[in-house]
Amino acid sequence: MKIDLNSDLGEGFGPYTIGDDEALLKIVTSANIACGYHAGDAVIMDRTVRAALANGADIGAHVGFPDRLGFGRRPMMMDLAELEKHVIYQLGALAGIAKAAGHKMTHMNFHGALGNMAFVEKDLAEMLVDAVASFDPDLILLCLANTEFSRAAENKGFRTANVFLADRAYDDHGILVKRGLPGAVIKDPLAVTERVRQFLSDGAIISINGKRLTTPIHTILVHGDTPGSVNLAKSIRTLIKAEGHEIAPLSKILV
Amino acid sequence: MKIDLNSDLGEGFGPYTIGDDEALLKIVTSANIACGYHAGDAVIMDRTVRAALANGADIGAHVGFPDRLGFGRRPMMMDLAELEKHVIYQLGALAGIAKAAGHKMTHMNFHGALGNMAFVEKDLAEMLVDAVASFDPDLILLCLANTEFSRAAENKGFRTANVFLADRAYDDHGILVKRGLPGAVIKDPLAVTERVRQFLSDGAIISINGKRLTTPIHTILVHGDTPGSVNLAKSIRTLIKAEGHEIAPLSKILV
Amino acid sequence: MKIDLNSDLGEGFGPYTIGDDEALLKIVTSANIACGYHAGDAVIMDRTVRAALANGADIGAHVGFPDRLGFGRRPMMMDLAELEKHVIYQLGALAGIAKAAGHKMTHMNFHGALGNMAFVEKDLAEMLVDAVASFDPDLILLCLANTEFSRAAENKGFRTANVFLADRAYDDHGILVKRGLPGAVIKDPLAVTERVRQFLSDGAIISINGKRLTTPIHTILVHGDTPGSVNLAKSIRTLIKAEGHEIAPLSKILV
Amino acid sequence: MKIDLNSDLGEGFGPYTIGDDEALLKIVTSANIACGYHAGDAVIMDRTVRAALANGADIGAHVGFPDRLGFGRRPMMMDLAELEKHVIYQLGALAGIAKAAGHKMTHMNFHGALGNMAFVEKDLAEMLVDAVASFDPDLILLCLANTEFSRAAENKGFRTANVFLADRAYDDHGILVKRGLPGAVIKDPLAVTERVRQFLSDGAIISINGKRLTTPIHTILVHGDTPGSVNLAKSIRTLIKAEGHEIAPLSKILV
Repeated sequence: MKIDLNSDLGEGFGPYTIGDDEALLKIVTSANIACGYHAGDAVIMDRTVRAALANGADIGAHVGFPDRLGFGRRPMMMDLAELEKHVIYQLGALAGIAKAAGHKMTHMNFHGALGNMAFVEKDLAEMLVDAVASFDPDLILLCLANTEFSRAAENKGFRTANVFLADRAYDDHGILVKRGLPGAVIKDPLAVTERVRQFLSDGAIISINGKRLTTPIHTILVHGDTPGSVNLAKSIRTLIKAEGHEIAPLSKILV
Repeated sequence: MKIDLNSDLGEGFGPYTIGDDEALLKIVTSANIACGYHAGDAVIMDRTVRAALANGADIGAHVGFPDRLGFGRRPMMMDLAELEKHVIYQLGALAGIAKAAGHKMTHMNFHGALGNMAFVEKDLAEMLVDAVASFDPDLILLCLANTEFSRAAENKGFRTANVFLADRAYDDHGILVKRGLPGAVIKDPLAVTERVRQFLSDGAIISINGKRLTTPIHTILVHGDTPGSVNLAKSIRTLIKAEGHEIAPLSKILV
Repeated sequence: MKIDLNSDLGEGFGPYTIGDDEALLKIVTSANIACGYHAGDAVIMDRTVRAALANGADIGAHVGFPDRLGFGRRPMMMDLAELEKHVIYQLGALAGIAKAAGHKMTHMNFHGALGNMAFVEKDLAEMLVDAVASFDPDLILLCLANTEFSRAAENKGFRTANVFLADRAYDDHGILVKRGLPGAVIKDPLAVTERVRQFLSDGAIISINGKRLTTPIHTILVHGDTPGSVNLAKSIRTLIKAEGHEIAPLSKILV
Repeated sequence: MKIDLNSDLGEGFGPYTIGDDEALLKIVTSANIACGYHAGDAVIMDRTVRAALANGADIGAHVGFPDRLGFGRRPMMMDLAELEKHVIYQLGALAGIAKAAGHKMTHMNFHGALGNMAFVEKDLAEMLVDAVASFDPDLILLCLANTEFSRAAENKGFRTANVFLADRAYDDHGILVKRGLPGAVIKDPLAVTERVRQFLSDGAIISINGKRLTTPIHTILVHGDTPGSVNLAKSIRTLIKAEGHEIAPLSKILV
């Protein structure tokens, strides 16, 4: 199996830093880069793009709400027609930074509250997909499978990359168990690694009730905002190789 | 003579409006569009781009300091390497909005304090030109002639469009007489129109001391932030045609 | 009857202006001043405070969401404990500006989406009231009567000033008919003036179904964002006096 | 000798953190709190104010340029009359947060580029001092001695607290040696501690050329943005006590 490792990077702002992007870019093969709305700025975007290029990693736009204070995690009731333009703005900004740095943006995904809302709101999901299509229909869209967003993306003819969140429980329909419910978030690094191992050997994610979920997975999300998570990311990378699989950027998998 | 009329547009923000963009886009042939730093936002950029397209006007990025509060009119002592990335970010954002709207960005210029500083600071001028070159060396750069910026642009091989500010006095070296000095700003609309007429018939701007300045001019800047200025813009347009000259977008002049 | 006229002022930002504050401050007796979150900035706040002082008008804080782009009109799902601090920040900022200018803030109200949410969400309403109480329990709170916010304010022992929106229809429970429903917004200036006249003579607002709503009213909201609305405000002021009533700032009514 | 230890705190923003404020508030006796312009926000301000209160520390406003992206470190050429209002806004905001939390703001100082400019620009220094005076003439102003700012503060009748930057070299006039010059910044923690010890025993700072500077010192600035600096702060605190001096908040020293 060829699989990608992706991570959310470039989430600092001005004097502020979140996560160890440098360490993560030696581990992951795809970087989702904040575009100056919920996080990130031109300088950090450029630095992250260049580091990704140096490490052979794909880059994508991590598009969010215009809300630095809330880090894009708070739902905002924006007019859909306006939101569409803000999506395109972010895509253009990262594409521009990438072009100037000699790299190329090949994927995108939605961050935080915007991403969560796009999983369940059909109108929003379709507008977001249309926004991306109007900018570049060849971008790969990172998705959670079985969501309004993934359906909208597929209907529009996009290549979609299904993400496995190894530290989150899934219900029998392949939907993430909501944060706050028992067992929703798996905190023990060993348990997370074991879930990855199980997935790699079986080709399926096991739901919280033990059901095998056979939706194809193209990429595993790894976090990097604590020292422990960088080590976990390394373990997952090591494990994938040890199990005989190949790690490759999304653009080499969804060709 | 083929000449362009350009104007600074899309300078609103969220609920705020500056100028009558709609009226101006029936007059000018090139729109310099604010990119969300000193003014403008994704929604306004999109609206301005589409209106320009509908009216057959060229679009360019009007790039400024990250200072909405000060409208980009206050000098900021930014690190040049950081500023470079902020320039590219703005170019990318407008290019993205344009692409999604089916238009194409073909020129750019610098706004306010950043523009003024680029006229006289060689290091800054060269960095700004390098920033644009790394994004797209085919863009036309709007310049005041005889400035560090115009020299840097020409040295880098850019096509430059010299702007005539008909409501500003020039000294014998072709430099704008500083605001605040006597006669620097020409407020009487008739006097401004007369300056345009004189330039059109003679092919030269007359300096404040009566010297003929023969630097070629490719575009005339018209303002649009008061009702009077829209009428002045109309008069200038009418005059150009009446004098037998052709008004055309920059991209049709500097081919 | 003593009645106050209030208006939302200081809603510009940096280079931008909304409404003719100068004209309105010759008409109204209470100014609700934006505090730099949804609109306004320190310079505009100071200018508005000084103009209110010169015209003998009360000043209050118009507190909103941190969303300039959306003018505070978009619901944002903020953590209540965080929102509480943002309310206090805005109150403190205006109180500081007022103090330095020799005026005193004596009332406050909530703007846009935040205000609307406070009408119907009990937890939010109580938190907002607690926030104000922790800063200054002597402030007068502008309310729509019969809302969660007015009840929370009264329960906490605040002086409340009930606002009459003369250009909006009320249902039989004294609640505003939702924008978008037929007859919700009264656009004809004569009809609005007639509603004020009717209220002044009868002491009651008439609901959309003809029911008399006898909730006491302390202040009438007048708008000022278009030339027409300034004239309407003047008509209302003239009418109140002509009908033999007295116009006075809130702090002189709710003593 | 009674001496204060002060530190710049509350410099995070939204999801971002700078420094270990909790650790420092167990060491210092005065907190300079960012007010939402160059850093900080309402939530962080409240948290810092309450932690200072719990630890018996004074609080003051750390007032800067409106430039989060540049952390207030970049000179901005602002209109003085406008800047004055932005200073008052910040003072009011922190005073409001403090009042609601049951604490009281008793000092203030200027941050970054604004502070540096106030050391050398007389007009700016006088305007800043006037701004503070219009808000509260009883605030203690943290100063570098022998600067335009300290002179303006004294001329206006303010209580001034002279700060000793133990990790910075002074010239023979008591002015900081510019960063970048040899020996300007003392990085060895032992050397810094030794400078504090020397000052405590002698009552004078020794200039880079060996001259004794006898300007009175009321407070020592300690940094907290790296783990090492927290330890250094602890060492300085321990040293002051070991040398038989008393550590007290500014408001207990400048009574």
